[in-house]
Amino acid sequence: MLLFCFRILTVSDRVHALATDSKPRIAIIGAGFGGLQAALHLARLPVQITLIDRRNHHTFQPLLYQVATAGLSPAEIAAPIRWIVRGHPNIDVLLGEVQDFDLAQRRVKLPDLEIPYDYLIVAAGASHAYFGHDEWEPFAPGLKTIEDALEIRRRVLLAFELDERQAASGGPQQPLNFVIVGGGPTGVELAGTLAEISRRVLANEFTSIDPKSTRIILLEGGPRILLTYPADLSRSAEEQLRHLGVDVRTSTMVTDVEAGAVRMGESRLSAAVILWAAGVAASPLGKKLGAPIDRAGRVLVNPDLSIPSHPEVFVIGDLASLKDEGGKIIPGVAPVAMQEGRAVAGNIKRELHGEPRRNFHYVNKGNLATIGRAAAVAEFGKVHISGFLAWLSWLFIHIFFLIGFRNRIIVLIQWAWSYLTYERGARLITGDQTLPGWTVSKNKEP
Amino acid sequence: MLLFCFRILTVSDRVHALATDSKPRIAIIGAGFGGLQAALHLARLPVQITLIDRRNHHTFQPLLYQVATAGLSPAEIAAPIRWIVRGHPNIDVLLGEVQDFDLAQRRVKLPDLEIPYDYLIVAAGASHAYFGHDEWEPFAPGLKTIEDALEIRRRVLLAFELDERQAASGGPQQPLNFVIVGGGPTGVELAGTLAEISRRVLANEFTSIDPKSTRIILLEGGPRILLTYPADLSRSAEEQLRHLGVDVRTSTMVTDVEAGAVRMGESRLSAAVILWAAGVAASPLGKKLGAPIDRAGRVLVNPDLSIPSHPEVFVIGDLASLKDEGGKIIPGVAPVAMQEGRAVAGNIKRELHGEPRRNFHYVNKGNLATIGRAAAVAEFGKVHISGFLAWLSWLFIHIFFLIGFRNRIIVLIQWAWSYLTYERGARLITGDQTLPGWTVSKNKEP
Repeated sequence: MLLFCFRILTVSDRVHALATDSKPRIAIIGAGFGGLQAALHLARLPVQITLIDRRNHHTFQPLLYQVATAGLSPAEIAAPIRWIVRGHPNIDVLLGEVQDFDLAQRRVKLPDLEIPYDYLIVAAGASHAYFGHDEWEPFAPGLKTIEDALEIRRRVLLAFELDERQAASGGPQQPLNFVIVGGGPTGVELAGTLAEISRRVLANEFTSIDPKSTRIILLEGGPRILLTYPADLSRSAEEQLRHLGVDVRTSTMVTDVEAGAVRMGESRLSAAVILWAAGVAASPLGKKLGAPIDRAGRVLVNPDLSIPSHPEVFVIGDLASLKDEGGKIIPGVAPVAMQEGRAVAGNIKRELHGEPRRNFHYVNKGNLATIGRAAAVAEFGKVHISGFLAWLSWLFIHIFFLIGFRNRIIVLIQWAWSYLTYERGARLITGDQTLPGWTVSKNKEP
Repeated sequence: MLLFCFRILTVSDRVHALATDSKPRIAIIGAGFGGLQAALHLARLPVQITLIDRRNHHTFQPLLYQVATAGLSPAEIAAPIRWIVRGHPNIDVLLGEVQDFDLAQRRVKLPDLEIPYDYLIVAAGASHAYFGHDEWEPFAPGLKTIEDALEIRRRVLLAFELDERQAASGGPQQPLNFVIVGGGPTGVELAGTLAEISRRVLANEFTSIDPKSTRIILLEGGPRILLTYPADLSRSAEEQLRHLGVDVRTSTMVTDVEAGAVRMGESRLSAAVILWAAGVAASPLGKKLGAPIDRAGRVLVNPDLSIPSHPEVFVIGDLASLKDEGGKIIPGVAPVAMQEGRAVAGNIKRELHGEPRRNFHYVNKGNLATIGRAAAVAEFGKVHISGFLAWLSWLFIHIFFLIGFRNRIIVLIQWAWSYLTYERGARLITGDQTLPGWTVSKNKEP
C-alpha cells in the first residue's frame, strides 16, 4: 500500500514538473552513441531532457554487420531507448521524426508537436550515400540500420537458395558473385564474413551447388583498403582477406550499378548480390540549422561543438565536422561521438555553474577493424597489431560496450558457438523471397 | 589431403545418385513439425528425399507468441531447414512455393521446375483465416509465421510510443485498448503476455501515459475460452487471465473489423491494436489433391493418412482431417503432426519391406496452454493442473523440443532474465512507424 502511494506521488510529481518546469530544457535529437552519452551525463544535472529518435531503439552499429551476416539477432545489438534511460526520471523519450528547427523561438519541430528548448543537441548521424545515384539503392543496399542489416541478410541467404533452385531446375546459372563496393571497415567486415559463410558455414549444406565456389569481390576506389588506417595495417588486412578467399580490387571505381551487375567503365561484373559500403552522407537535418556545412552535409562546428551565432545549439557525432590540432578531420566513429556527447554535457554543466566552456579535444584510444573469424587489424598509437590478438581485442572491447548485461552474455555464447562449430545462429530469410536481377523471381507470380 | 579426396568423392557420389537414381523418390511439401519428422525418419531408408518449403527455416510455432510479445528473437525459435537435416545426404532441401500436383504423372509442380516422386507427403499446414472477411487482415494481423510475429510486435510496441506522443502533443487521446479476437491457446497466450507487458515491463518507462491503464480485452465467440480443454481448466485459465487484468468476454461475436475498432453487432469497441487469433484455414494445396475436404479446407484422409485412390500420396499435420476411435477430430497441434510424420515414414518403410501398412493412432500425451509468467493450465489424461506447476511443465517441454542446443541455452537465459527482472529482450520496432487508425500516422508525410 505504501508502495502504491509512493508510485502515485512519483507520477503526479513528474506531471507537475513537466507542466510548470523552470529547469533548463534540453532537447537531444538522436539516441546514437553521441546523443545517448549526452543524455545520460546531463541527467545528473537539474535539467529536463527530451530525447527524440526516429527509432525506439539504440543500435550498436559496430556489430550491424554481424546481423547482416546472420551471426547475431537484431535484439542482441539493439536496446530500447526507454529501457536504457529508465533510471532517469528527467529524461523524456519521444519516438518521432524531427522535420525542422525554429532557432529564433528555440523550438524543435515535429509534424504533430513542437518541443521548446534552452539547449539543443543535434546528434542525428549519417546514412549511406550513393554519390548522387540514389537509383542504385534498390540494387545495392547499404548498412546503417537494423532494417538494412535484415535486408542484406535476406539477400545473401536467398542468393544461395535461388542458385540451388536454378541448378536443380537445370536452368541457366548465374555466377554466384557477391560484390561489395567500398573497402572501408564495413566493406572489409562484410567481405571477410561472407567469405567464411560460403567456405565454411554453408559449405556442405547444398546438393546442386557448391557454396565454396562463391566469389567474394571487394571493390575499392582508392589505392588501398582501410584508407584511414596506417598503410601496414591496410596491407595486413588485404592479406588476411585474400587468405579467406576474397578477391580484393583496389583503385577500381564503380561507374554504374544495375539489377544483378556493377559496371566499372567498360567492364561489367555480374553479381548475385551487391552491397554498398562506399559512401556516407550526413543527416539532412544538418542543413536546417543554417550553419555552414561541408561537402558530405556535415555541420562545421565551433571548437566547443556549438554552431556559429547559436551558442545554445550543439552538433555532435557523424553530423559534426571538426578538425583536431593537427588539422585532420576527426573521423565519424563511435568513440568520437561518445566523447563529444560527454564534452557537450560538461560544457552545459559548466555554464549552469557560471563557469566558462572548454574546447573539445578528441582522445584517440585506438582503431580496430575486424576481418573475420580470428582476423583483424588494430592500431593503438604506435602499436600496430594484426590477426588473432587484434581480433581478441576487438571482441572484448565490443562486447564490453554492448548495452545490457543480458546482451553481453548472449552475444558471448553466440560467438563461442560460432567459433567452435562454424555455425551462424540467425540464418533466417524473412520477407520477400525474390532478388533483383534473378530470373526465378517469377516464383512470386500466381 | 585425404579429407579433401573424401569430399570430392562424396560430392560426385551424390550428383551421380541424383542423375541415375533408382531409389524410391519421396517428395515432402512443408518443413513444419510433420514434414520434418517424416523426412528425418525416412532418411534412414535407401530413399531419395526432396523437402520443399516456402521458407528457409522451420518455425517452432508454439513459441511464436513470445516473438510477437518481444520476449524472444526470431532466430531463437526458428532454425534453417538445411541446418536441421545437414547430417542426411539423401535429403535435398528446396526453397520454393508448390503450385500444383500432377497426380497421374506423379510430379510436384513449382513455377520453374517439376519434382518427380514415388511417394508424396503433403504437410503444408494451415494459416489464420477471417471467415470470408479477408479485408479485416490489415487491421487485425494473425500469428502463423515469423513475419506475422514481427508485425504484431511492431504494432504493440508502437501503440505505446504513439500514445505517448499524442499525450505529449496535447492531442485527442485514444483509449489504449488491445483487443484479441479468439480465446483459443494463441489468444490466451497473447492476452496474458500483453497484460504483463503493460502492467510490469513498460509500467514505469513512460512520462505522459500510464501503461498500466492499458486495457487488454479478449473476445471469444464460444461460451468459454480454451474450448478444446476440459471445462475446469477453461475456468482456471479465465481466472488466471482476470488476475492478470485481462477483460475476458465470452459468447461475444465480432461482426466487423475496421481501422482502430471492432464491432459486435450494435456495439463498437475502439482498439489501438487488434490481433486475430480466431480462425484457421488449411493450405489451399489441399484442394489441389482432388480428395474430399472439410469446411476448413482440410483433406479427409484414410486411416493410414493416404488419400482416396492415391495410396502413394499422404497428407499430415494441420492439413489433414482424421477422427480418432471415439469419432472426435484429432486436433491441429504439433504432437499430432509429429506422430503423423513418423507414422507415414513407418508405413513407407513397411511397404519397401513388403509388409502391410498400419493405421494411424494418435497417442495424446497431454495438452498445455500457457497464460503468462508462472501461469498455465495442463491436462495429462485425468490429471488437470493449473498455475506455476503447469507453467513449469510447459516451459521445460517447450525448451526441450526447441531445435538446436544453442537455442535452448539462449532461450533459457532469456526466460530466466525475464522472470527475474520483468524485462523483455526484443523490444524493437522495425519497419513502418505508423499504425492503421492512428492520427499521428501523418508523421510519415514530408
